[in-house]
Amino acid sequence: MRAVDTGGYLKGRIRREDIISAAAVVYGEVGYHGASLREIAKRVGMSHAGLLYYFPTKEALLAAVLERRDAEDAEREQLDSPPGLEVLRHYLALASHNVRHPGIVDLYARLAAEAVAPDHPAHEYFKRHYDEARVGVRDSFRVLAESGELRAGVDPEQATITFIALMDGLQVQWLTTPDAVDLVGSLRFYLQALLTVPL
Amino acid sequence: MRAVDTGGYLKGRIRREDIISAAAVVYGEVGYHGASLREIAKRVGMSHAGLLYYFPTKEALLAAVLERRDAEDAEREQLDSPPGLEVLRHYLALASHNVRHPGIVDLYARLAAEAVAPDHPAHEYFKRHYDEARVGVRDSFRVLAESGELRAGVDPEQATITFIALMDGLQVQWLTTPDAVDLVGSLRFYLQALLTVPL
Repeated sequence: MRAVDTGGYLKGRIRREDIISAAAVVYGEVGYHGASLREIAKRVGMSHAGLLYYFPTKEALLAAVLERRDAEDAEREQLDSPPGLEVLRHYLALASHNVRHPGIVDLYARLAAEAVAPDHPAHEYFKRHYDEARVGVRDSFRVLAESGELRAGVDPEQATITFIALMDGLQVQWLTTPDAVDLVGSLRFYLQALLTVPL
Repeated sequence: MRAVDTGGYLKGRIRREDIISAAAVVYGEVGYHGASLREIAKRVGMSHAGLLYYFPTKEALLAAVLERRDAEDAEREQLDSPPGLEVLRHYLALASHNVRHPGIVDLYARLAAEAVAPDHPAHEYFKRHYDEARVGVRDSFRVLAESGELRAGVDPEQATITFIALMDGLQVQWLTTPDAVDLVGSLRFYLQALLTVPL
């Protein structure tokens, strides 16, 4: 009985991953607003009702796309490295990656703003996203404070919140006026202003 | 002929202002997504078709609401003061004002993210908004650089872009996780890190 359940569970997980992959492709092609669950279901070769079993709303599917993006970002850029200067350098590398993938940055920025409403289907995702990002970055700033690589008087907690806010705010300003904003350069400028050592 | 035209023009402007005021009230009550042009027309006592003459889309009306907000912010907080430390202090006062008015901050953040698309009706507004904000803040950082109140090596241009990005990014993070973010404190922390004098 248990073995059969596990098989069904695995099959369901694979199906779920297929839907998420198809959604990411469709979002990239026509944007989030242009994408319909019906079209995404068609790409995976399943019925609209079948897809709704896994993702009852457009927003729930988008949240899943973003969660997978977080996991892929963390792995590719080694964001889970031991806390310290390397982690901040990895975040700069992530920003470089984002500059080459404006489509997903656009999606992320739009959903983050929509999802500030507590009843939005992606609200819990973004709360978790911010909490997790703060934990990782805060640990690094604390290590830098202890080793004297953070300038005297710089509070690791404030450095953390502003660093994450800066990444978000720069993305929107860069997407709106790309010629006026050097996304990676601005992040580097900011970090360098807080540090006593070269990045 | 000219006098009659001017009368019609003035009447049209007043009508336009009435619609913008009603829209701001309705957005505050039910949010941007919950608001309909039909409901806003009803509040002003005009027909739906009549309102469409002034604002053909929901987004065009929202852009007008935001433009008026910019003008009101600039006047109330004296953002057009002579460039220097006072202007940055005025921006902190604006942030305090925003903390007391989360509804309009929410609207602004959502529209800024939606409007990164060049074909969005509010795209031109946001391009202009960023350009104007950068001009004002840049002049202040330049004055501070010349007077030695900006730390050595801090580039006024990068200070400008990151300061504006930080305001935007902090708003979204604060709205999502209000207990974890001190919006004004974080802005103050950041500015203080760039300055050689107390704020």
